[in-house]
Amino acid sequence: MLISAMAHRPESEDCFLIDAHQVRLRFKTALGDIQNVTVLYGDPYWNLPDETGEYHFTYSKAPMTKIASGQTHDYWAVTVKPPYQRIQYLFAATDAEGKTILFGDRGPRVDTEVERIEAANYFRLPYFHEIDRTKTPSWVSETVWYQIFPERFANGDPSLNPENCLPWQPEDHPGREDYYGGDLQGVLDHLDDLQDLGVNGLYFCPIFKASSNHKYDTIDYLEIDPAFGDKALFAKLVHEAHARGMRVMLDAVFNHMGYASMQWQDVLQNGQKSRFVDWFHIHDWPLLPYRDPTLGQGDPQFDTFAFGPGMPKLNTANPEVQAYLLEIATYWVKQFDIDAWRLDVANEVDHHFWRQFHDALIAIKPDFYILGEVWHSSQPWLNGDEFSGVMNYAFTQQIEDHFLTGVSDAQTMLARLSDQLMLYRDNVNSMMLNMLDSHDTPRLLTVAGGDLDRALQALAFTFLQTGTPCIYYGTEMGMAGENDPDDRKPMDWSKLHQSTWQRVHALVALRREYAELLGNGTTTYALTDTGLIKVTRQLAGQTLEGYFNTTDQSVAISAQPLLQQGFEAGILSPKGFIVRAQ
Amino acid sequence: MLISAMAHRPESEDCFLIDAHQVRLRFKTALGDIQNVTVLYGDPYWNLPDETGEYHFTYSKAPMTKIASGQTHDYWAVTVKPPYQRIQYLFAATDAEGKTILFGDRGPRVDTEVERIEAANYFRLPYFHEIDRTKTPSWVSETVWYQIFPERFANGDPSLNPENCLPWQPEDHPGREDYYGGDLQGVLDHLDDLQDLGVNGLYFCPIFKASSNHKYDTIDYLEIDPAFGDKALFAKLVHEAHARGMRVMLDAVFNHMGYASMQWQDVLQNGQKSRFVDWFHIHDWPLLPYRDPTLGQGDPQFDTFAFGPGMPKLNTANPEVQAYLLEIATYWVKQFDIDAWRLDVANEVDHHFWRQFHDALIAIKPDFYILGEVWHSSQPWLNGDEFSGVMNYAFTQQIEDHFLTGVSDAQTMLARLSDQLMLYRDNVNSMMLNMLDSHDTPRLLTVAGGDLDRALQALAFTFLQTGTPCIYYGTEMGMAGENDPDDRKPMDWSKLHQSTWQRVHALVALRREYAELLGNGTTTYALTDTGLIKVTRQLAGQTLEGYFNTTDQSVAISAQPLLQQGFEAGILSPKGFIVRAQ
Repeated sequence: MLISAMAHRPESEDCFLIDAHQVRLRFKTALGDIQNVTVLYGDPYWNLPDETGEYHFTYSKAPMTKIASGQTHDYWAVTVKPPYQRIQYLFAATDAEGKTILFGDRGPRVDTEVERIEAANYFRLPYFHEIDRTKTPSWVSETVWYQIFPERFANGDPSLNPENCLPWQPEDHPGREDYYGGDLQGVLDHLDDLQDLGVNGLYFCPIFKASSNHKYDTIDYLEIDPAFGDKALFAKLVHEAHARGMRVMLDAVFNHMGYASMQWQDVLQNGQKSRFVDWFHIHDWPLLPYRDPTLGQGDPQFDTFAFGPGMPKLNTANPEVQAYLLEIATYWVKQFDIDAWRLDVANEVDHHFWRQFHDALIAIKPDFYILGEVWHSSQPWLNGDEFSGVMNYAFTQQIEDHFLTGVSDAQTMLARLSDQLMLYRDNVNSMMLNMLDSHDTPRLLTVAGGDLDRALQALAFTFLQTGTPCIYYGTEMGMAGENDPDDRKPMDWSKLHQSTWQRVHALVALRREYAELLGNGTTTYALTDTGLIKVTRQLAGQTLEGYFNTTDQSVAISAQPLLQQGFEAGILSPKGFIVRAQ
Repeated sequence: MLISAMAHRPESEDCFLIDAHQVRLRFKTALGDIQNVTVLYGDPYWNLPDETGEYHFTYSKAPMTKIASGQTHDYWAVTVKPPYQRIQYLFAATDAEGKTILFGDRGPRVDTEVERIEAANYFRLPYFHEIDRTKTPSWVSETVWYQIFPERFANGDPSLNPENCLPWQPEDHPGREDYYGGDLQGVLDHLDDLQDLGVNGLYFCPIFKASSNHKYDTIDYLEIDPAFGDKALFAKLVHEAHARGMRVMLDAVFNHMGYASMQWQDVLQNGQKSRFVDWFHIHDWPLLPYRDPTLGQGDPQFDTFAFGPGMPKLNTANPEVQAYLLEIATYWVKQFDIDAWRLDVANEVDHHFWRQFHDALIAIKPDFYILGEVWHSSQPWLNGDEFSGVMNYAFTQQIEDHFLTGVSDAQTMLARLSDQLMLYRDNVNSMMLNMLDSHDTPRLLTVAGGDLDRALQALAFTFLQTGTPCIYYGTEMGMAGENDPDDRKPMDWSKLHQSTWQRVHALVALRREYAELLGNGTTTYALTDTGLIKVTRQLAGQTLEGYFNTTDQSVAISAQPLLQQGFEAGILSPKGFIVRAQ
């Protein structure tokens, strides 16, 4: 019995409220080590006398279910409803030989005499406070997102074209500084096409006034970039999106500002006398030409995003900066009714600020969605008082590693996906943005070595996961491209409604049709004897199963699928999949 | 190699800032499993090209120290200072056979080719934000607390005596409803005695207007209980305490109010029409006589502390209640300059409220001390935005179990103490209130079976620990008593300056003399070959060692101790101890 592998952390992803009366408990044991786990629980104050008159804690027992197996651990869970919105609990883990360990707040105790376990060794959730429960906006789990890189989506208003704008050639290899003239009118023109595709959430890369084509170097957060349009146009775009049942998410770049921003320019001009001197992190004066330490030039004089001198980092501990950014954050919600912020480089901004940010936005729109860009594990941000979810690279990389590049075998992928899911509360998992590519990665088709079947098989698998899927513009057109700048080619509109588009469309339709189940249902993974990856999603008696053939053999399986690829006459080919209802 | 036992949690007690530039990292491995651990770390953006031109993360290596061993784990730690207030890191753990595992953000990877480990597997502390660092008031770690139960400490003003006040008989067995007439004038009269004893922090059980002798059923938080005195007297008491270098901590009972409070009486009188109806948690109407579910009377109609109908629980999610309690909390600081709040039943009040509470108090007194009553593990409250520390019952029970009741052997005690210390950040450990008894437990001497040497040996051990020690009134007089009400006997002033007092006095003097070292130094535990428990405290080259004989054999040890008990001619007797400087 590997006692040292057992773990539980109170008031975390291991113990969280489902509602005001029910609590979800999770417990970790070493992979394959434990036969069954029971939680013993009761009211912390419910002490009843035994026959001798001595008072003892009175408890109930609930068997836990092994809900997942990761790389090194089995995960057990159960939902319980104690009588008075208070609970004390501990875990009784039993191995194949019948040996039982009691695992509680003060560590493991080898003791089969459960009735006499010291009260002090129980974990506690001392009182169920609805105000502390991690809440999530319900619409998000039923959303299929679509990410738009505005400069490359569609050129709807050539009169706004930047100087030296290149002709719209989807086969081009864009340079890092090139412009193609994409704009908001282009998006507006194609809203019906997006509705055809079936997506119901639009995630825009930055649209505020900035120097570059990507707009991550903001000049003014309160202006639409003039090459993209103006506020009236944006208001119309939000209105038209909403009219089609689509939510709108903008990209907030609050970690740093652009070099050309009024505030940074003021610092460059006025030095230590600038009224914005405390808006940034400047270590020594006077400011000299920027030094890049990675090139052996010595330490930079001020903090930036990465080592990029064009993006000086904001001092979000400064109350003036906080007020400024909160004003911006709420302005676009109050005046334009946007539904979500995606937060760029969110992990490098302080938690103190994000809590203010969260509170300010939830106060004006209780079901607002806050999506952080965090590439690593994200527990510190996902406890209900900062972000709703994060860009789920840590999860989708596992899919890529198996389906697309073959770095991992199926078993390893499923274990690692399980580990990822067990990092967060269940409702938080439903808020994660699952994308296989973005403006910051090579395109899906490219990662798949140009193999469309493989790419769409991975996409289908992603669509069956917990978490809200996101399509990067152009995936439905079969676009390819290496990482920046080749992942930002002008959209290939010639492929609209063509075969790739149809296949993506079918996937979106499935996710939308089973939105509640796929958004909120439980997820179970398995490998069949024939080597198929099986995903089972369940909610309220409804079941959807996906089978994915990532072997190089055809496999027989009988099904009348709702959706399929490479499936014919009961045979599922390599790179094929089926989805069926049960 | 027990990989499943390895653990690290980013942005927690396993990864925390020491200051704006240094981060402390901890890592857990199975007890005795691993020979050494190295942390690989560097700037997340510092990628340098290798000879082939490929870019790789450039890292430094720092060996970790095994700082403690718990019941099932070894704990490793190191402090590192990366160049740019950002860090990515992973752990390389090597066993006795030289096998190395890399443990990172996405789990363990068996790989000796460290240089090529995928960047995604590094843990991150993305940016060092001083505003997010867990801060603690520096004076607390150098404080020796003294807990006063006001009704039983001293009767300084007989004119305030409650009706039916009993004569001051320290040998009495008080009834639960008895009064002896203790008051604030009594405390004032004995301030010089407390200063003689050497304590420099006064922790008062509740002094606000209430119905009972213990005052935990508050009627009015803005009035001093008339049997204790008035505000002018309290102001004088705080002033006199401060003049003697003593801090003052009051007890805030914010989980519930008293039955006789104006607010609850209003609810009883006006039912659902009461303007205080949302101040409590009332489940159904009309309010009937209270039912006690533990007696089989059915569910109560309203929430209380435990199942006590006299203490209706406050609804701290109600903004009116929040404002009311915050006004009270700040009033006593602003008007009377108190230094600390001890929060009764703190674990049953919501985190959302405690964060407001923390912010409101720190805003007016940045080094204010917030002490929560939490008997179990307390990570959820100790991240810098709620409490400074908690009443450390979970820690001191381990001392009791070995020194006083013999339930645990020495090895087990040291392991469990280590586990407790590893639950929190280092500076938080220094904020914990370490008491061997209180108004809620049997008295130390009673738990020690009346054996004063054993009791004082345990107290000396406690005084050498990380965390701020607290003496319950009367310990220095050799008072005994079972749990409530016998632990609340009238103070035995006849024992002032007598032998027990002298021994406690010497302990306090030692703690005060080495306040910085004992308050903030590292702690190492060991068992000597002869079975002595050895505690080593170190800070900045200064070392203090304590040796405790809990065996039934005398043990030879050569020392010129600063303080000793049962030590003569190089022989340490059972129940003896020495403390020496190194």
